[in-house]
Amino acid sequence: MCRKLRSYKGVNLKFYKINGAGNDFIFPIDKENLTENEIKNYCRRGVSIGGDGIIFVKKHAHYDFEMIYYNSDGSLAQFCGNGARSAVLFAKERNLISKDSTNFLAGDGEHKAFFIDRENIKLQMNYSKKSQKISINNFEDITFLNTGVEHIVVYINSLKDFNVNKYGRELRYNPMFPKGTNVNFVEKNGNKLSIRTYERGVESETYACGTGITAAGIVEMERLGSNEIDLKTVLGYSMKVSNENGKFFLTGPANIVYKGETY
Amino acid sequence: MCRKLRSYKGVNLKFYKINGAGNDFIFPIDKENLTENEIKNYCRRGVSIGGDGIIFVKKHAHYDFEMIYYNSDGSLAQFCGNGARSAVLFAKERNLISKDSTNFLAGDGEHKAFFIDRENIKLQMNYSKKSQKISINNFEDITFLNTGVEHIVVYINSLKDFNVNKYGRELRYNPMFPKGTNVNFVEKNGNKLSIRTYERGVESETYACGTGITAAGIVEMERLGSNEIDLKTVLGYSMKVSNENGKFFLTGPANIVYKGETY
Repeated sequence: MCRKLRSYKGVNLKFYKINGAGNDFIFPIDKENLTENEIKNYCRRGVSIGGDGIIFVKKHAHYDFEMIYYNSDGSLAQFCGNGARSAVLFAKERNLISKDSTNFLAGDGEHKAFFIDRENIKLQMNYSKKSQKISINNFEDITFLNTGVEHIVVYINSLKDFNVNKYGRELRYNPMFPKGTNVNFVEKNGNKLSIRTYERGVESETYACGTGITAAGIVEMERLGSNEIDLKTVLGYSMKVSNENGKFFLTGPANIVYKGETY
Repeated sequence: MCRKLRSYKGVNLKFYKINGAGNDFIFPIDKENLTENEIKNYCRRGVSIGGDGIIFVKKHAHYDFEMIYYNSDGSLAQFCGNGARSAVLFAKERNLISKDSTNFLAGDGEHKAFFIDRENIKLQMNYSKKSQKISINNFEDITFLNTGVEHIVVYINSLKDFNVNKYGRELRYNPMFPKGTNVNFVEKNGNKLSIRTYERGVESETYACGTGITAAGIVEMERLGSNEIDLKTVLGYSMKVSNENGKFFLTGPANIVYKGETY
């Protein structure tokens, strides 16, 4: 396994490492693709760069840029909310965006985003507007919805010491979800929500999930009839979900952690 | 937590990330210290650089260099075998070593090392030569010894699918070891050993442990009356432990994964 990894020393990869509210991504510079094995190996934490995924940002004839997202297991993915917000920061840094708004292409189609500042990168999200109330076992307050991928939003009393992996796994494998689902547990405190997410695919709790945060924000906005909700992630990042004339946006920080070059 | 982390963006850190047979370390360039919080935050995987520790390599009046090792939790540590081998590679890269042998200072005193090539960085280890045979529960073939830190070496039939965390934890907390111990499980196949290690402090299996590999090599050499043993780590790295006139050496690879600069 590491023999393979070490043989990649010959590939000189210049990259940025960008953190989008707790998800981290490798953005290659001057390279438009890598093999599945290279992606997998570069994403391995401990022995290589490490990351949740690798994102290629390419020039495009009709858009400011195109983002192509690969999961850490080397597989191509349609979309990633925090990855897309990080891609906007990368494009800004690399002067692919001249203005503070941008149109870009992702695996799931066209997206619009606004670079306000590094704490506020605002991304338009997909939402099909068909949420569904359900209850399973002891969880009576569950909403199922699709914000690009399947999510359930589960209100609970307290997130502190809550066993996200245990209950997340239980719900994710419930026969009610033939394809499985991501599971977001939210705690409400005043008008703010805190969120912890169990991710299908990763099969454990993750630091953040952009589509999950969007799902939780939408459920709460539908309840309150409001147009804007603040949420706090498990690492303490502040995110905002908003509804502007029926269009849904996710706003939050991203930061370039470092710029690197492999040996 | 991440507020603190993000406030470190102001500190411009130039560094090498070096992997020593499965352990990974951050080597700052042009900086001789960082605060405990900075160390802790830079070592956090996912949101920052990530690493098992940070190693400062400083010039010294009487040695080629001095290495100062901090664990990922920000605490100062006496020594780290794979960290020291990585420090030799760093010193070589930075032209602190003109020859292929070096004398350097670590928290536990003077060390000698040889830079043969990147696959063979050879480090003299400490060993007090007082190994002790013991048996605990179902494990009848255990040796306790100190190679800088406390280790037990446990021979088992097969490492594949072996529950290192479960049995490692059980043995580590056995009252026979008042201060605890690191636990190395080894499988013998012909004249080669495979090793998996449960590390006290980390409290789980790790990818590699230099002092543990040395301990396992010494136990096997004592059994066979030989002077050289090959071991394979869980990630497949090849390591050699040798006895040269009563001096013990650990030899194996290290590689610079990338050079980086924080934003």
